Amino acid sequence: MSSTFGHAFRIHTYGESHGGGVGVIIDGCPPRIEISREMIQHALDRRRPGQSEIVTPRKEADEAVIYSGIQDGLTLGTPIAVHVKNTDQRPGAYDEMAVKYRPSHADYTYDAKYGIRAASGGGRASARETIGRVAAAAVASQVLKKFHPQIEVLAWVQSIQHLHANVDPSSVTAEDIESNIVRTGDPSMAVAMIDHIKSIRSAGDSVGGVIQCVIRNCPAGLGEPIFDKLEADLAKAMLSIPATKGFEIGSGFAGTELTGSQHNDPYFMENGRVRTTSNRSGGIQGGISNGENIVFRVAFKPTATIMTSQKTVTADGDDTELQGKGRHDACVLPRAVPIVEAMATLVLTDHLLRQRSIL
Amino acid sequence: MSSTFGHAFRIHTYGESHGGGVGVIIDGCPPRIEISREMIQHALDRRRPGQSEIVTPRKEADEAVIYSGIQDGLTLGTPIAVHVKNTDQRPGAYDEMAVKYRPSHADYTYDAKYGIRAASGGGRASARETIGRVAAAAVASQVLKKFHPQIEVLAWVQSIQHLHANVDPSSVTAEDIESNIVRTGDPSMAVAMIDHIKSIRSAGDSVGGVIQCVIRNCPAGLGEPIFDKLEADLAKAMLSIPATKGFEIGSGFAGTELTGSQHNDPYFMENGRVRTTSNRSGGIQGGISNGENIVFRVAFKPTATIMTSQKTVTADGDDTELQGKGRHDACVLPRAVPIVEAMATLVLTDHLLRQRSIL
Amino acid sequence: MSSTFGHAFRIHTYGESHGGGVGVIIDGCPPRIEISREMIQHALDRRRPGQSEIVTPRKEADEAVIYSGIQDGLTLGTPIAVHVKNTDQRPGAYDEMAVKYRPSHADYTYDAKYGIRAASGGGRASARETIGRVAAAAVASQVLKKFHPQIEVLAWVQSIQHLHANVDPSSVTAEDIESNIVRTGDPSMAVAMIDHIKSIRSAGDSVGGVIQCVIRNCPAGLGEPIFDKLEADLAKAMLSIPATKGFEIGSGFAGTELTGSQHNDPYFMENGRVRTTSNRSGGIQGGISNGENIVFRVAFKPTATIMTSQKTVTADGDDTELQGKGRHDACVLPRAVPIVEAMATLVLTDHLLRQRSIL
Amino acid sequence: MSSTFGHAFRIHTYGESHGGGVGVIIDGCPPRIEISREMIQHALDRRRPGQSEIVTPRKEADEAVIYSGIQDGLTLGTPIAVHVKNTDQRPGAYDEMAVKYRPSHADYTYDAKYGIRAASGGGRASARETIGRVAAAAVASQVLKKFHPQIEVLAWVQSIQHLHANVDPSSVTAEDIESNIVRTGDPSMAVAMIDHIKSIRSAGDSVGGVIQCVIRNCPAGLGEPIFDKLEADLAKAMLSIPATKGFEIGSGFAGTELTGSQHNDPYFMENGRVRTTSNRSGGIQGGISNGENIVFRVAFKPTATIMTSQKTVTADGDDTELQGKGRHDACVLPRAVPIVEAMATLVLTDHLLRQRSIL
Repeated sequence: MSSTFGHAFRIHTYGESHGGGVGVIIDGCPPRIEISREMIQHALDRRRPGQSEIVTPRKEADEAVIYSGIQDGLTLGTPIAVHVKNTDQRPGAYDEMAVKYRPSHADYTYDAKYGIRAASGGGRASARETIGRVAAAAVASQVLKKFHPQIEVLAWVQSIQHLHANVDPSSVTAEDIESNIVRTGDPSMAVAMIDHIKSIRSAGDSVGGVIQCVIRNCPAGLGEPIFDKLEADLAKAMLSIPATKGFEIGSGFAGTELTGSQHNDPYFMENGRVRTTSNRSGGIQGGISNGENIVFRVAFKPTATIMTSQKTVTADGDDTELQGKGRHDACVLPRAVPIVEAMATLVLTDHLLRQRSIL
Repeated sequence: MSSTFGHAFRIHTYGESHGGGVGVIIDGCPPRIEISREMIQHALDRRRPGQSEIVTPRKEADEAVIYSGIQDGLTLGTPIAVHVKNTDQRPGAYDEMAVKYRPSHADYTYDAKYGIRAASGGGRASARETIGRVAAAAVASQVLKKFHPQIEVLAWVQSIQHLHANVDPSSVTAEDIESNIVRTGDPSMAVAMIDHIKSIRSAGDSVGGVIQCVIRNCPAGLGEPIFDKLEADLAKAMLSIPATKGFEIGSGFAGTELTGSQHNDPYFMENGRVRTTSNRSGGIQGGISNGENIVFRVAFKPTATIMTSQKTVTADGDDTELQGKGRHDACVLPRAVPIVEAMATLVLTDHLLRQRSIL
Repeated sequence: MSSTFGHAFRIHTYGESHGGGVGVIIDGCPPRIEISREMIQHALDRRRPGQSEIVTPRKEADEAVIYSGIQDGLTLGTPIAVHVKNTDQRPGAYDEMAVKYRPSHADYTYDAKYGIRAASGGGRASARETIGRVAAAAVASQVLKKFHPQIEVLAWVQSIQHLHANVDPSSVTAEDIESNIVRTGDPSMAVAMIDHIKSIRSAGDSVGGVIQCVIRNCPAGLGEPIFDKLEADLAKAMLSIPATKGFEIGSGFAGTELTGSQHNDPYFMENGRVRTTSNRSGGIQGGISNGENIVFRVAFKPTATIMTSQKTVTADGDDTELQGKGRHDACVLPRAVPIVEAMATLVLTDHLLRQRSIL
Repeated sequence: MSSTFGHAFRIHTYGESHGGGVGVIIDGCPPRIEISREMIQHALDRRRPGQSEIVTPRKEADEAVIYSGIQDGLTLGTPIAVHVKNTDQRPGAYDEMAVKYRPSHADYTYDAKYGIRAASGGGRASARETIGRVAAAAVASQVLKKFHPQIEVLAWVQSIQHLHANVDPSSVTAEDIESNIVRTGDPSMAVAMIDHIKSIRSAGDSVGGVIQCVIRNCPAGLGEPIFDKLEADLAKAMLSIPATKGFEIGSGFAGTELTGSQHNDPYFMENGRVRTTSNRSGGIQGGISNGENIVFRVAFKPTATIMTSQKTVTADGDDTELQGKGRHDACVLPRAVPIVEAMATLVLTDHLLRQRSIL
């Protein structure tokens, strides 16, 4: 199931960075959901290279083509196939990488696993693979919208290296986030973050950071006890995004420093609805959503490709050095924001459909 | 797939805390693996209540019965069913909880999801459910041992609230960990941690902490690119354990404060084998093991059940108060150590069998 | 997924013929379905040995124990575990079979696959394995009843060797079928069939036959296009029953002798509902139920265990002879009727829950 | 999992008859398998319309494009995506079918299931969907060839309506089958069958028949006990092919007329290998291959689209009549032969990889 995600709402992605293209098949999507090519394209444009001065300047239009499953703007219930052609390929730029393993990339491990590797462009380990996820989530978000119009999934840059934003998950808006090219939810930090990314890039280096995500107005009752807990599936979804190193929900690692009496979320009634006065649970208890905001954070390491020389080895087993070339993101977070939202949306939609099957 | 884990090596658990018992079916286990009831029992004894003075004093023998799949000490290739009877049930102790939702427990969310709930003993949300996982992992570790005798999976208590251990994942031993009842890998911290847990318990409160885990001598090549990345499956496995709030691998959240040039792990050759000089990747790159130590940390919140009065609501929607009763762990970490090891073992075994299918 | 069946309503079976017992875990069952131990027991009693003079006289009470998932007669939404102890074991009776492969049994193939085998009682290949399926279907039929009270699943013996019954699938009743111990839907054939089975058994030989099944009042729209067509899942379900050699639906093999103009089922309107005037489609078109009766037939070979001497080989590779011993069914069909119904019920319930998830 | 087939070797198909195209993603394919676009194209050409005078004259080149997963003629271990553009679309020809349900087609049932339908060209229910299966099987057969070079999968037309071929599954060759456009394994019947199809077509009618398939030199040990028995998965695979109504293996339905002493296959030793003197088991015992020829038959109903007027109803619920138009196969069997082989190949490959994971 390597390239499959979800049980009821399932996606299957394919594609290497260089080659015929990348894409996704979406299976299990309810029929008669409104979706247009433009909605999918709009989602892809948010993760596209070249969208701003702080991301890779590669020129990829990432134009979505819908092969199946949609007719006159409505889903048919049959598999939806979305394909995006690979266009801006410069295989020559990867000649050196075909023989030298890039440190902290997947070159060596693909070789160790398969005994073969698509070196050009990073192959299947390229972030281009996430195109299929984002396209699928554009469809999924229409499913959510149909069944629960109030649900909102919002992610933003919480920190870039040591620069931390101050954001209230209850009130941050899509407009706040999209108002700045770094996609932080705290516009007052945007300039500092942008300047830092530019300066790091000038130095041939890279940075990481933390993306935070909130799901608002999620109905109580989503998530399955035991292995497919909602937070477990979110954790898997987030750690499946390239360059991630950690996931925490609600109080997270900091919560381990509290006592139970400090940490527990007391219940109270509000207009006939069960609420909690605090939300250290992060909106999920026992693997099941409780109706409060679902809040989690994802750690992204600094981009592995840097423009300074590093020690490494060749595929033939000789020690050597390698200096990054080409057009890379010095910081992936601005473009990772829509990917975090996409994976959260896919998890929610899958669990929504699963819940519907037992009700 | 709520109660199913794994694709090639699959386990299915069942059971409420109070009721006929809890257990597991293991499917996809290779034939002719050596396993005895005693091996399974030994594993269960490590997570058993009443094993030391800092865990719940409940008297549950947790005796494993093997119903199928094993003959004369060898697996048959058919499903292995292991059952553990529920014995120490005091349903009366839960009368109040049948009508009042325990804060930060799963009482309310089960009701929200299913419209019905096994209140007694916490039902399916009880930590007793993990018995099946631990039993299954006892079998899985024999599978690992057969195919890769050198693999070691070791977890230990890294912190209890503010008390942090100092442990080297490369050299910590099972003996270090089992030498103290809190199961920290740093015996010098054991007394302080034990005292802290006792004092918190006396105060009717509870604490959490962090468990760290290392997998040593894992062959390179395990893990599937894209969604079933090894770290993604580990993250899901860990977040499926009750009371967990976070997961990080290698450099984790702290790694987001480094630059790429500081963070990358340079490669070098050692006796014909590709190695890295540092291990901020945590033994996994691009979702696939690279042969270095796999190192990750799991955050556990303080136990939700505390002996002081808390605000909550009834199932009928009235505000009320609830004071915990009964025999609970003031700190789950000592007993969670074998559960973390179990889930890591299950993930590894599943990926090992998956890798064998394509080679 | 060897011992797992279903996607939304999933069952996992376990157990060898001799050993601790056999059973099933049911996962994905909706909550608040009425079910009692007696309902499950009643279903098991219909497939039990020793129930009449024409089936094996083995004395197995097959008493169901429910371990989890049901409280006060209602399902909890959590896994339902049902266990049946093995009681009437005569391992001595299988000493010879431990070294000699029984012709047309699974002894040799299990050895070829696993390199090990539970010889006693036939191990996992024993028909005892179907106990878990029948228990699970007792639960499933309550799910069907809740959502579609009119659905009826009825199977009966259509032929025993050359003795063919004459049964109208539209009107045959459960009473007709249960009125005779051979479970034919044509009571006028019962005596002849019973006499034939007795006479074949006296001769130390065995017979097979055909079971027919009808599903009445199935809503239109169940079944998934392409691979999980309703008839494809029924075919798999039926061919997974021991001793089956064929499956046909609607016109089946005989339909290959018709032309399209003879074979097609014309549509007409009846009280605002789309109906067909004939039913050569067997109630399914393009993998999806059309609301007409679903009618299919399953071929069962004669029981492999016979009391006459047969040529075979030993596990060590020597030619030898083997004569069956013990207490076996000379004809499995009377006891297979509830198993065919069980598997049909499981397929329907799974597809019903799948359909609910997209609506 | 509607459009997914297989567990270890998994395929996901997509595509409506009219629209952007049809295709498949293959996931779980071992790396370093030799495959070329030409091999895939060759397989597609065998199922292509317009290949002979007795199949539909539609002009579809069905040209395969490989998007991913293959590099320099070798599989990468990553998903292989194969796309085939839809070219010869005549949507106008389907105007009438958009409002009238074609008898014994899936028009009505898709509407009943989804409340929406791609009327043009039959949508997802079109036989064009099988293109993805055939492309995937071309890859799968290379996997089989690598691990078991001797395996042969051969299907042929056994009967066309009342015209029955006489074919020995042990000796029939691919050359025999491909020597005639009807693809019968009995060339002496070819002219009669071809003439019959032409004459039926001239009459505006259609015919069905039976396809038989043999798998030779299959290793013993493939197939999983219980639900994923090899014959159960073959049955599902075959019944998932459009227009199929039945499946039987080995002695099949005719075997129900034998006694056990007539039916059992005695074992004997041949050059140290366990063999059977007869093969009424059809090469599978207890769900697992025994090394003998696997032999099964599949019933295909007469093509539903005929050129004579039939009673039917409109989507709005009015009785009406419909006369088929356009370019259809009067008999699908010649083109279904490669589809039967494809599905058998996919089942075998999946079980081969599953078996490798436990050895």
